[in-house]
This record gives sequence, C-alpha cells and structure tokens, in this order.
Amino acid sequence: MPIQERDASPATIKVLRPKLPTSAELLPYLERIDSARTYSNYGPLNGEFARRLGDLVGGSHTTLTSNGTTAIELALRLRCEQGGHCLMPAFTFIASAHAVCNAGLTPYLLEANPDTLALTPEIATAALKSVPGPVAAVLVVSAFGAPPDFVAWADFEARHGIPVVFDAAAALTSLSGIGQQPVCVSLHATKTLGIGEGGAIFCADQALMERATAMTGFGFAGQERLSSLRAGNYRISEYAAAVGLAALDGLPARLQEMRDLTAAYASRLEGKAVQLQRGVGTDWVTMTLNVMVPAADLAATLARLDDAKVEWRRWWGLGCHRHPAFKDVPRSDLSATDALAPRVIGLPFHADLSAGDLDRVTGCLQ
Amino acid sequence: MPIQERDASPATIKVLRPKLPTSAELLPYLERIDSARTYSNYGPLNGEFARRLGDLVGGSHTTLTSNGTTAIELALRLRCEQGGHCLMPAFTFIASAHAVCNAGLTPYLLEANPDTLALTPEIATAALKSVPGPVAAVLVVSAFGAPPDFVAWADFEARHGIPVVFDAAAALTSLSGIGQQPVCVSLHATKTLGIGEGGAIFCADQALMERATAMTGFGFAGQERLSSLRAGNYRISEYAAAVGLAALDGLPARLQEMRDLTAAYASRLEGKAVQLQRGVGTDWVTMTLNVMVPAADLAATLARLDDAKVEWRRWWGLGCHRHPAFKDVPRSDLSATDALAPRVIGLPFHADLSAGDLDRVTGCLQ
Repeated sequence: MPIQERDASPATIKVLRPKLPTSAELLPYLERIDSARTYSNYGPLNGEFARRLGDLVGGSHTTLTSNGTTAIELALRLRCEQGGHCLMPAFTFIASAHAVCNAGLTPYLLEANPDTLALTPEIATAALKSVPGPVAAVLVVSAFGAPPDFVAWADFEARHGIPVVFDAAAALTSLSGIGQQPVCVSLHATKTLGIGEGGAIFCADQALMERATAMTGFGFAGQERLSSLRAGNYRISEYAAAVGLAALDGLPARLQEMRDLTAAYASRLEGKAVQLQRGVGTDWVTMTLNVMVPAADLAATLARLDDAKVEWRRWWGLGCHRHPAFKDVPRSDLSATDALAPRVIGLPFHADLSAGDLDRVTGCLQ
Repeated sequence: MPIQERDASPATIKVLRPKLPTSAELLPYLERIDSARTYSNYGPLNGEFARRLGDLVGGSHTTLTSNGTTAIELALRLRCEQGGHCLMPAFTFIASAHAVCNAGLTPYLLEANPDTLALTPEIATAALKSVPGPVAAVLVVSAFGAPPDFVAWADFEARHGIPVVFDAAAALTSLSGIGQQPVCVSLHATKTLGIGEGGAIFCADQALMERATAMTGFGFAGQERLSSLRAGNYRISEYAAAVGLAALDGLPARLQEMRDLTAAYASRLEGKAVQLQRGVGTDWVTMTLNVMVPAADLAATLARLDDAKVEWRRWWGLGCHRHPAFKDVPRSDLSATDALAPRVIGLPFHADLSAGDLDRVTGCLQ
C-alpha cells in the first residue's frame, strides 16, 4: 500500500452518533436475567419496562413490540379488516408504507401540511371523495417526533367512523393525552430511547391492548397455549428490555442534552432563512434536528455542507412514492410534497458535537 | 395468613429450564458494542454471528431475522406470490400457521407420517388433487429438530414446480446439505442456540439470500436508503448478536450435555412401550425430548407424571386445526394427526436434571 499523505482538513461531522447504555449500565439488569433464567415471553424485565414506558407517556396501557414497524402493523390489524385503503402521508419514513402493506391494506398517499409536515384531518377529509374504494384506516405520522394532534384526530374518527392509528415513531418523549386510538413508537437504536430494535403501542383501551399483547405472541390468550387470534411473533427479549430499563435510567440526562443542543442550534439559526420545525426545543425535542431550507438556496446550501465535510441526511427521503417498491401505489396530487421533501434536511445532532462543530454546521446555512 | 404445613413431597421437575449465556460470558461482546457504537442495522456483531451460523450448517448463506416465525414469512414471500394455498402439516407449532397467513397464503393442513412425525412428498403429492385452488408453496416442518429430507423435497419441487420452504425451527444443529430451498430456524430462548428472540434463514442461493437480507431492512438495496422490495423490519440488534456469539462459544459443551441427557433417557426407556423419536440421540439432538406414548396407556401415563410432580408438555398441542384462530382453514382428513398428536409428550429436558430426577420421570412410563 502506498503511504497516505496526512490529511490536514477537519474530520467529517457525522449526522448521527447513537449512544445506548454501556455494558456497565446494563450489568445490573443482565444479572437479574442470569438469576431469573427467563429470556423472553413477557418475563419480569419486559413487564417492568412496559410499566415504566407507560408511566413515561402519562399512564397508558403498553404493548412492547419487536420494532416500530411491527407496532404499526399490529395496531392496524387490531383496528380494521384487511383489504381496504389506508390514508397516509407520502412524506414519512418508508417503514410506514411497509407497515400498511403488511397489515393487508393499500396505502393511499396524501400531502402533508407544509408548516407542520404532518397529515391533517382536513387533508384526509378532502381525500375521502377521491379514494378508489373503501377507506379502512388512517395512519397519521408524527413529523420527526412532533406530538400528534390527538384531539383533532379523535374528532375525525368520530365524524367519519374511520379508525385512526398514529405512527409516532420518534415521538416517545413528546406524548401526552393518549386516548382510544393506538399510538406506535420506535425504540430503534437511533431513537431518543433506543434499545437496538424494539417498539411499543400505547392506548387507553385496555381490552384492545390485551389483544395487542396476545398478538405479539401467537395470539395466545392468558396462560393458554391456544391461538385465539391471527397473529405472529413480535415479542422482545429480556435482553432488549434490559437495555430499555438502563436507557430509561439515563433518559432525563439525555433529554437535557438534547434540549441544550437544540437551543444551541436555535440561537445560531436566529435571523437565518432556514427554519426549525415548529415547537422543537420549546415544546418537545427528539434525536434528529431537521431544518427547512429555502428552495432557492437548497443546492448551494447542500454544496456548502458537503464542502465543509458536514454530513446531512434527508431522513425521510423524497416521499414514499419515490421509492421503487411503492411507485405504483395510489395517491392524491403530491406536488406540495414534491416541493417540500427535498428541502427538509437533517443536520448533525448528537452529544459529541462541540461548539465549534455547531458553528461549522450553521455557518453553511443562510 | 395461616401457617402452612411444611410440604415434604419432592419438588416439581420442570419440563424446561432455559440457560443462555451469563452476563460474564456476554461482557466481551458487549464491550465491542460500547466501542463501535453501532447497535443494529447489520453491525459488525451481526455480520460475525451470521458468518459463524452459516459455517455451523456447512457454509450456507445466512440471513438473520427477528425470530423463527418471521424467517418463514420472509422465505415464503421470497419464493411465491401472495394469494394461493400453502401445503403444511397440521402437526406443528402454531407459529408455522401464523407465518403462512402473514405471508399472504392460506394454509392447507395435511397429515404427518406417524413414524417421522413429518410431512412427506408422498402426502403432499397426493393432496395436490384435493386443494381447492392454486398451490403456491409447501412449508415442510422439521419434527422437533429432526433433519428434513432435503433431497426428497428438492425432487418434489423439480417434479411439481411448487416452491418448498423448510420450517426447521428447532433443527439448527441437525442441518447439513442445505440446497436452493430456504431453511428457517428459530433462535428463541428455548432453542439449542437461544439468543432470546431471533431466527435465521439459510440457503445456497446467494441472490435469494441477498434479497432476504434486504427484506429484513425495508427492502433497502446495498447502502441506498431506497426501498426496492416490499418488506418490513425483521432485523436483530447487535445485543441479540452478542448473545448469539456467546451462545456459539458454549455450543459444543451444550451439545455434549444434550447428547448425554438423551442417552441417559434412552437407556432408561429400553424395553418400554414408549418410543423415542427416530434418530434422536444417535443422529441428532435438540432441546426437547419427546416420546410417543401408546394410546392405550396415555391417560394413565399422564396421571402418573402428574402424581409424581413431573411436568410434561405437548409442545405442538393437538395440531393447528385445534386452535380457535385456525379452526376454519382448509385441510385434508386429519384423523391420523388426531390420533398421533395427543400421544406425543415432551418430557423434562435440561441440564439441572439429576439421575434421580430421570429415574422419577421414566418410572412413570411403561
């Protein structure tokens, strides 16, 4: 190999650097597993983790799932029959569309409100006339961790009789006031509370949630080993619950870290044309930071970030309809999404960023 | 509370006591996760675990999955279109039937050979005439860890053009000669190589397995974040892979333990009317021990086990058609399964059993 010249330019600033509990933080929980010798199937750590998660979101019933995608699949399967259309925003992480299909529904892709980046009851109501077949459900997506409007969507369901499920993948720490409509979160490694792979469903409807939990384990009801529901295996192991419990221990500090970092960004972006998401940092925080870049400056902004070796990412890409696997699913006009999605840019956001790093990132933004 | 009299009778002998790697055995792998700060998404421990698993079964391509059920779902989705029937034995763990339905297929339940407890190509061929619609696939189930007959089923597929997938949930350490037909295993806590929750698909078809791996992560091909396949999230975390690597380290000792225990049972059962499964202990071992009890002595045998405080379990229950969630799925005549299934009894099988325990268990069998 030829000798490489030393590169004096600054190191790349990574867009994300997940940090989950360390071995030392896990150890007390792992030792409980060693003693109990229960490794899955709703063991004691699963129970404790579910209770603590439910408390975190205001006392909800909780079902743990193998990941956020399967949480959505189960919630949709619980709330509607297979075969109809599911209204959903085109602007979301592609997992939402996979989940809808895996629940036996056909996605019908809609626009998002360009201010909140979210589907609204108004957009969904207007679309009801144009869907070519029965509408079985609506999947409402939280925009990058923003709290969904539970009140407005409960009203939508009451008006139209169409069940609503929330994909609140990144919103675990933004949730309160959860009602009868299931709310699905992700506990993926990259989330505010990451456990590697995992998810959860929250809902005030206890009977529905008991069925949800049964569906994570072959539809076995209670202690019986008889399937009473069409289901599958969507459980998490006791090891995954151990990571979750250790992560919950560290959550207050992590949230403070994210609030501080969001504030540090907000102060540097004051007076600039790029916009933070509404409410971020003041009402809620999450583990990514997304800005809306003015269309006229987009190409130049991305070039400046690249030149400064600042990683950026379109966390949700350009919309579900731009993925080859979903290019043929039915949809409304998506011209607003096509204008919006390219401009939503995820910036570096993790605890390893120095003040100098933040200056370098925000120096690229106008 | 009244004071309880001391119970002098012996303690219950448990049917299963899983033992996965201890915290101390996990620690070196967890420290690698601490350093790498990759927690899922095909990280380094996932890669190493997949390679070592593939080596274990003779050098197969390997896709890790969230559990054994989703392994079957993905393998079926890869091999056939949704909507047809899937031939499968009624006598299997109910996960098999859930997986078939989750793959968009209708189970068509068949008898198993009463000697091998497995579906045979002859039974499947004979059934082709009576299935009320197109047959999309066959799900062949390994009976409690027995090696499937890969040669006979490759021949079936060549003759009939119907894709075959193997549910070899408990057979990880019995597999060799894996061909073009995907073989699905479970790595559940109760399996020979348990990691809590996990599974794997093995297959000699590299292109198929690359698609399988892409399907575990939203159908993203390579480094692109664009879905090219209808898929979902079926990944395992790096923590799960850590448990797997530690479990692989301990596997030779565990296999020897299971061989010794199977031999200890076999010697005690010599001359008795109850039968061990063909080949168990000589050709293969697994983490359960099942005996076939003569019908005439079944009720009395179970009563003796209960009286002696010996736990027993019908690991597969009485057949898929006896579960409320599957009572209406189409099927052939299942009278042989109805006669067989009640007689297949799982006996205590774990490393905590003493010679005295084994005497007590086998003393109940005639």
